[in-house]
Amino acid sequence: MKLFNASVYANRRKSLMQAMGQGQFFFPGAVEQPFNYKANTFPFRQDSTFLYYFGFAQPEMAGLIDADAGVSTLFGHDIDIEEVVWMGPQPTMAERAGLIAVEQHAEFGTVAEVLKGKKIQYLPPYHADRILYLAKVLGKSVEDIQSDHSMALVHAVIKQRSHKAAEEITQMEEALAITAAMHTQLRKATSAGKYEAQLRGIAEGVAFANQGRLSYGAICTVQGQTLHNNEYHRMLKEGGMLLCDIGAENQMGYAGDITRVYPVSPKFSAQQADIYDLVLKAETESIATVKPGVKYMDIHLGAARIITEGLQQLGLMKGDVDESVAAGAHALFFPHGLGHMIGLDVHDMENLGENNVGYDTSVQRSTQFGTAYLRLARPLETGFVLTVEPGIYFIPELIDMWEGEGIFKEFIQYEKLKPYRNFTGIRIEDNVLVTENGHRVLGVPIPKVRSEVERD
Amino acid sequence: MKLFNASVYANRRKSLMQAMGQGQFFFPGAVEQPFNYKANTFPFRQDSTFLYYFGFAQPEMAGLIDADAGVSTLFGHDIDIEEVVWMGPQPTMAERAGLIAVEQHAEFGTVAEVLKGKKIQYLPPYHADRILYLAKVLGKSVEDIQSDHSMALVHAVIKQRSHKAAEEITQMEEALAITAAMHTQLRKATSAGKYEAQLRGIAEGVAFANQGRLSYGAICTVQGQTLHNNEYHRMLKEGGMLLCDIGAENQMGYAGDITRVYPVSPKFSAQQADIYDLVLKAETESIATVKPGVKYMDIHLGAARIITEGLQQLGLMKGDVDESVAAGAHALFFPHGLGHMIGLDVHDMENLGENNVGYDTSVQRSTQFGTAYLRLARPLETGFVLTVEPGIYFIPELIDMWEGEGIFKEFIQYEKLKPYRNFTGIRIEDNVLVTENGHRVLGVPIPKVRSEVERD
Repeated sequence: MKLFNASVYANRRKSLMQAMGQGQFFFPGAVEQPFNYKANTFPFRQDSTFLYYFGFAQPEMAGLIDADAGVSTLFGHDIDIEEVVWMGPQPTMAERAGLIAVEQHAEFGTVAEVLKGKKIQYLPPYHADRILYLAKVLGKSVEDIQSDHSMALVHAVIKQRSHKAAEEITQMEEALAITAAMHTQLRKATSAGKYEAQLRGIAEGVAFANQGRLSYGAICTVQGQTLHNNEYHRMLKEGGMLLCDIGAENQMGYAGDITRVYPVSPKFSAQQADIYDLVLKAETESIATVKPGVKYMDIHLGAARIITEGLQQLGLMKGDVDESVAAGAHALFFPHGLGHMIGLDVHDMENLGENNVGYDTSVQRSTQFGTAYLRLARPLETGFVLTVEPGIYFIPELIDMWEGEGIFKEFIQYEKLKPYRNFTGIRIEDNVLVTENGHRVLGVPIPKVRSEVERD
Repeated sequence: MKLFNASVYANRRKSLMQAMGQGQFFFPGAVEQPFNYKANTFPFRQDSTFLYYFGFAQPEMAGLIDADAGVSTLFGHDIDIEEVVWMGPQPTMAERAGLIAVEQHAEFGTVAEVLKGKKIQYLPPYHADRILYLAKVLGKSVEDIQSDHSMALVHAVIKQRSHKAAEEITQMEEALAITAAMHTQLRKATSAGKYEAQLRGIAEGVAFANQGRLSYGAICTVQGQTLHNNEYHRMLKEGGMLLCDIGAENQMGYAGDITRVYPVSPKFSAQQADIYDLVLKAETESIATVKPGVKYMDIHLGAARIITEGLQQLGLMKGDVDESVAAGAHALFFPHGLGHMIGLDVHDMENLGENNVGYDTSVQRSTQFGTAYLRLARPLETGFVLTVEPGIYFIPELIDMWEGEGIFKEFIQYEKLKPYRNFTGIRIEDNVLVTENGHRVLGVPIPKVRSEVERD
């Protein structure tokens, strides 16, 4: 158990009360999720907003912030002797209340009674069990619970959590230190004959050894063109590449999210090197433009332009660059967004709605294939932390479909793509803080220049 | 994706139809469980009963076994090009149907329509999302869904899954081979100055590297007296012990569950050696009595007797052994059950009810502290696989409470327990198949004799 100073939580709750002005806000903690039966659970993960205001990463807890009375209540248990036998001694609720400076604490079982008759606001539940729980403690139907969440509360929480305070940046740097250690091991261990699962296992072991865990389902694959690969059974072969999109969550719940590509043979091939350098150029030049006031949509489109120009130079695309980017022809090779907010969640606050987090009145979500997947598009503000992660992929199924349907044949040199059918894909990603004057790449540097990534 | 021969699944479904005689049985697959928002999920784990009859370990699937018509239906998706971009190519539903020899397949979205008007039997859901899902597709209330499951189906499934077939034993041996590799690394890596998390990380890496994963939340702790330790932040110190209760689940979902205790210093102390040898004696002598027809309750009580006799010899207990075991005095030191069924779940079929799996009309569940936690008590049958896992712990909080209340002072030498307050605990566990003539310890032998566990 690790917490910030009590005043951090008190100040966060006070800020929320001030932002909302009035009202009573209920934050149920998460519940242990069954693996294959109720008592065999996945490792517990606390709800991030509960962590933000109440800090504790144990199940069977909830919090109430009462802006009308100006007090907060922590709900939880004092454990009995049988629980000591199974779980060991735990702090009392009175001690817990002190650790996060809440004015009141109460037994978890009294939640329904305490909330009764109050006009309670809550965030949209993303776990089925929290839907059933809210229905029970608020005395509403399952249908009403799913529609009656408070959008005012959603926006206030997003506004607050979007700006990372200094103590949060320290935590994110720690998550990235663990992530860097994972990538160091991955880079060293990449070699022909090993299996993807072995590499992923090494990285996961490093996360655990540092009191962390994976902040999301790691991608550790020789088939980098499959964007969300959840299989790890393939063998690394000479001439191939291992794409590792992997990050640690540290003990306090903050996420890292870093992608690197390692050649299986010591060096990249000439074909791989060309694409690698182009992706790296898109990444570093995109990072260079990060500063307050710039729309992330524009940085995304800037990356699409760099990729389009580079692929034209390699003879794989053609035509007017502006028209090509506006039409979305690059999405054959770069079919995802440039990045997303990151913090207590790897896609920060995604449970509160991607558009609420990443878009505002100044920028509309695109419906164009590729850019439609962009999770962050709004103007950047000081304190935002985001990922920058361009990629270039050769997806045989998509190439065949587009070529067959004659899509964008004015921009794509389909006949030149044959030698790239087994290329797979390359993505490079870092985590960037928006500062008053520009930006700072968080964490210790993780090798990404081609010569540093290659082995002797 | 790895499956048994198609006929294995066809035969299992046919056996269920025959056992039930008539009726229609619906088995929803599991759903991906959110970690901190809907799209960031824990690694998918298929429902074990779905795996048993339908084999596929992918989400958004369901199965219907229709004993009236003598046919089964697999529900799932054929994926589109956008899904190929994110997930890579997948087998078609027609191909999947062939792989498990189901007569029919249908789009997952048509489940409600297909089930409409039918009298559907289902197993009790243990995931909140499956409660909501069943309510939706069966057109029932959330409350009715939780009470209307079929007990006839529960008993038929338990009866079938309790007897492990040869092809299942092969899988369990594979899970145990991975588990043995994990323990080999743990034994070698145990040394002062390391952290519990590092050791757990090493073991988890080995599981992944072998296409497996942990079959339950590993216990890897220097505080073995806390039975379900989920923390890993402590450092290993000279003179201490590392209790590792850890097992792999192999690619097909079968579990291993093995406990060993490693000395942090190369050798155990004399005090540790005495308790170690006593636990090992309880384990090996309990295993020796495993055969068809014997009640596991009796084997559990036999272990309690061995522990009581041994603790008397060490001067920690006293009085009549029969009376002591009958009263449950040993539970101060051995406060849990001797073991449980194991198979596709580490506590096999626990979602269908512990008492339905482990008890029958011949043996009632005890309410006595300690033995009340025994999950398996019924007479053993050929083909059962179970764990044998006695332990001796010194739990300061429990000792203080019992001593303060004067509990069992006729059996426990409280004044002799002082030198054991920081002992922690020892448990030794293997997985055992009940054979026609007796038993077989599954898996490659994992060192457990004291001299094999100690290091040079």
